[in-house]
Amino acid sequence: MSYSYIKPGRLQSVALENYRGLYGQSVAEMDQAVAALPRKEDQIDLTHGDTRAFLPPASAFKNFTRAVTENTEAYSVYRGSATVRNLLAPRISTLLGIDVDPTKELIIMPGTQGALFGALSAFVGLGTIVAFPAMEYFMNERIVAFLGGESIRVPAAITPEGFIEIKEEDLESAHKAGATVFVFSNPNNPTGGIYTREMSEKIARWAKKYEISVIADQLYCRLIYDNRNYTHFSALAGMKEQSITLLGPSKTESMSGYRVGVAVASAPIINSMETLQSMTSLRAAGYSQHALAGWLDEEPGWLEERTVLHQEIRDYLVQGLSTIPGLKVCSPGGSSYIFPSVADCASVSGNDYKNDFSFVKDLKLSGVLVSPGYQSGLAGKGSFRINFSQHFELIKTSVDKITSLIRI
Amino acid sequence: MSYSYIKPGRLQSVALENYRGLYGQSVAEMDQAVAALPRKEDQIDLTHGDTRAFLPPASAFKNFTRAVTENTEAYSVYRGSATVRNLLAPRISTLLGIDVDPTKELIIMPGTQGALFGALSAFVGLGTIVAFPAMEYFMNERIVAFLGGESIRVPAAITPEGFIEIKEEDLESAHKAGATVFVFSNPNNPTGGIYTREMSEKIARWAKKYEISVIADQLYCRLIYDNRNYTHFSALAGMKEQSITLLGPSKTESMSGYRVGVAVASAPIINSMETLQSMTSLRAAGYSQHALAGWLDEEPGWLEERTVLHQEIRDYLVQGLSTIPGLKVCSPGGSSYIFPSVADCASVSGNDYKNDFSFVKDLKLSGVLVSPGYQSGLAGKGSFRINFSQHFELIKTSVDKITSLIRI
Repeated sequence: MSYSYIKPGRLQSVALENYRGLYGQSVAEMDQAVAALPRKEDQIDLTHGDTRAFLPPASAFKNFTRAVTENTEAYSVYRGSATVRNLLAPRISTLLGIDVDPTKELIIMPGTQGALFGALSAFVGLGTIVAFPAMEYFMNERIVAFLGGESIRVPAAITPEGFIEIKEEDLESAHKAGATVFVFSNPNNPTGGIYTREMSEKIARWAKKYEISVIADQLYCRLIYDNRNYTHFSALAGMKEQSITLLGPSKTESMSGYRVGVAVASAPIINSMETLQSMTSLRAAGYSQHALAGWLDEEPGWLEERTVLHQEIRDYLVQGLSTIPGLKVCSPGGSSYIFPSVADCASVSGNDYKNDFSFVKDLKLSGVLVSPGYQSGLAGKGSFRINFSQHFELIKTSVDKITSLIRI
Repeated sequence: MSYSYIKPGRLQSVALENYRGLYGQSVAEMDQAVAALPRKEDQIDLTHGDTRAFLPPASAFKNFTRAVTENTEAYSVYRGSATVRNLLAPRISTLLGIDVDPTKELIIMPGTQGALFGALSAFVGLGTIVAFPAMEYFMNERIVAFLGGESIRVPAAITPEGFIEIKEEDLESAHKAGATVFVFSNPNNPTGGIYTREMSEKIARWAKKYEISVIADQLYCRLIYDNRNYTHFSALAGMKEQSITLLGPSKTESMSGYRVGVAVASAPIINSMETLQSMTSLRAAGYSQHALAGWLDEEPGWLEERTVLHQEIRDYLVQGLSTIPGLKVCSPGGSSYIFPSVADCASVSGNDYKNDFSFVKDLKLSGVLVSPGYQSGLAGKGSFRINFSQHFELIKTSVDKITSLIRI
């Protein structure tokens, strides 16, 4: 008998992305086609932030080094070092506006991605229906499928000022369709839109009414522009018990290379997430956990400066991109994402850029790599995502290249 | 409506460990009972190795630091840094005796635990039956349950000289019972037993005959005593295609705090594992991956010295423990585990130590923490596991405490 590897149902279901195919190809096929294109030597990569443009706080490496030198916690408990959890809990309590117990209500995981996988595992079993906004982080659907659940999309719009809007009737429909879990990122990935207090309260009331478990991915919650108010979901009435908040230093603080993130939730939910972590990786890297010791406790002015610098880049992008005929752009309220639409643009090549797949391929050939909108769901058709946590001059070059790619 | 968190089926199934209960309690309940006992101030923890007794090679921190300083790979591709994979592949090829393609056949994951989760995910879907030896790493069953599979145990014995033996008829029975996946650790966790070439070939022939996918957890394969021959499973006829080999620097090299491990398999299997990793943590920590740059390329004599030092401790333990009336101990052929049985020992307290649960509790009260045998399956009843990668004097103290606990 000759052995042939057959992907088990669990992983096969993840390859379901065909159903998201907008252009007769699966997401995976389109991604491969983009990856296969030649890479210019001076390619600008805007698919993720540049941790050399915005450096991690110096405390991260200092605290990591101390952990290696003292070498006491190569093996922490699965939910993470008690020392680090004790340091973080009061700061997270202040950030979120709820009381967080370091022993019971906090877990350190391998990045906010690890925390997202853990959070979904805590809520999703076979047949669980999970709802999320029309444009959302592209991994949600994949993880839900892996866990045997089903994903449905709730229509969502972003205003030109960068606020996400979801209609009450669409939330009601999601409940009627059987959704028992709601996942949303705030600021939103890919648009950078944020949720007003009123909008957040609308979701909370709906969640409470129907006992919907909520995952609030707040990875970017410290990078908010224009001094806007930001609403932490878990602080809303009744939401501490029935939600999981995901936080982490990988974005605003550029600490992605350490692969640490945290989740905040009630004790039984954290227990479930710890069980999951005992299987997937035992713990976040013991030394890296200590890189968190200075997190949320940076020098005065550090966050303000980082925010101002990103806001300048955002303003330049919004201004520069909106001069391109047909291109539509909303001003992100937070995060380092911007999600312009080229659906109404013609192009030098004569391509119809309703098709973000074509646009992203053409742009890569001209030296700039961005994330195609289809990755964020059907509603992303015709858009593309830039992570603008970059050196300013590269952003300027990129805007020039986008401009010359699109016919003026 | 008031919200009450209900663990989804996926995680609930993991709490199945009741069926392994030997003493009328679930494994989780027994573990909690041990954890709840008071901890002596000078408690000796033998449940895992002490990374301060045996330090990581200096190259690990040096290479990590360079990665932070150069900061080019905070974001590697999901399967891990190409630079690091290119360094490791030729060394792993030499170690295993097969040709390993760095691009297609190698993935870096968050520890060998992460690689185990990924490997099982690549093979196990709903209803998949997974077989493993009677005494095996306690996480296997948990992960298989989470993935919706079913675990069966194959009877296995360890000889006094430290070799694992499995009968052909028992492998045949596992196939008849529907097993399509076989998982084994070599050296074996918890016994330290190793598989002879003949034994490994027997498993390989059986796997080939019935198209059984095999996971060979070789985490400890560099720490082999008495200059014994060690057989790398993937080098046996036909096994490269149908097996996954797990390796990592967390044990012999004491690099657990970096949380990196690797898996070697054929291209389609590595692709599946990468899909899994894109969901669970995106990648192993970018900087930690570079801590691997010196792995399997230590200074001449480094491994030999580490082996000799561990072998001395092993010899002391085997000798010291076998003087205790009734205590049975096999000499581990590799790893830093030893798995003595107290089933035929009486005790000072009058407890019947057939019950490893009672023994482990009593031993903790006298200041030494070890892993109870029940954690490794029903066959572990009456035994306990020591990880002897420790300061020698602590091992001596531990033997004294065990001796005085058991009636002479």
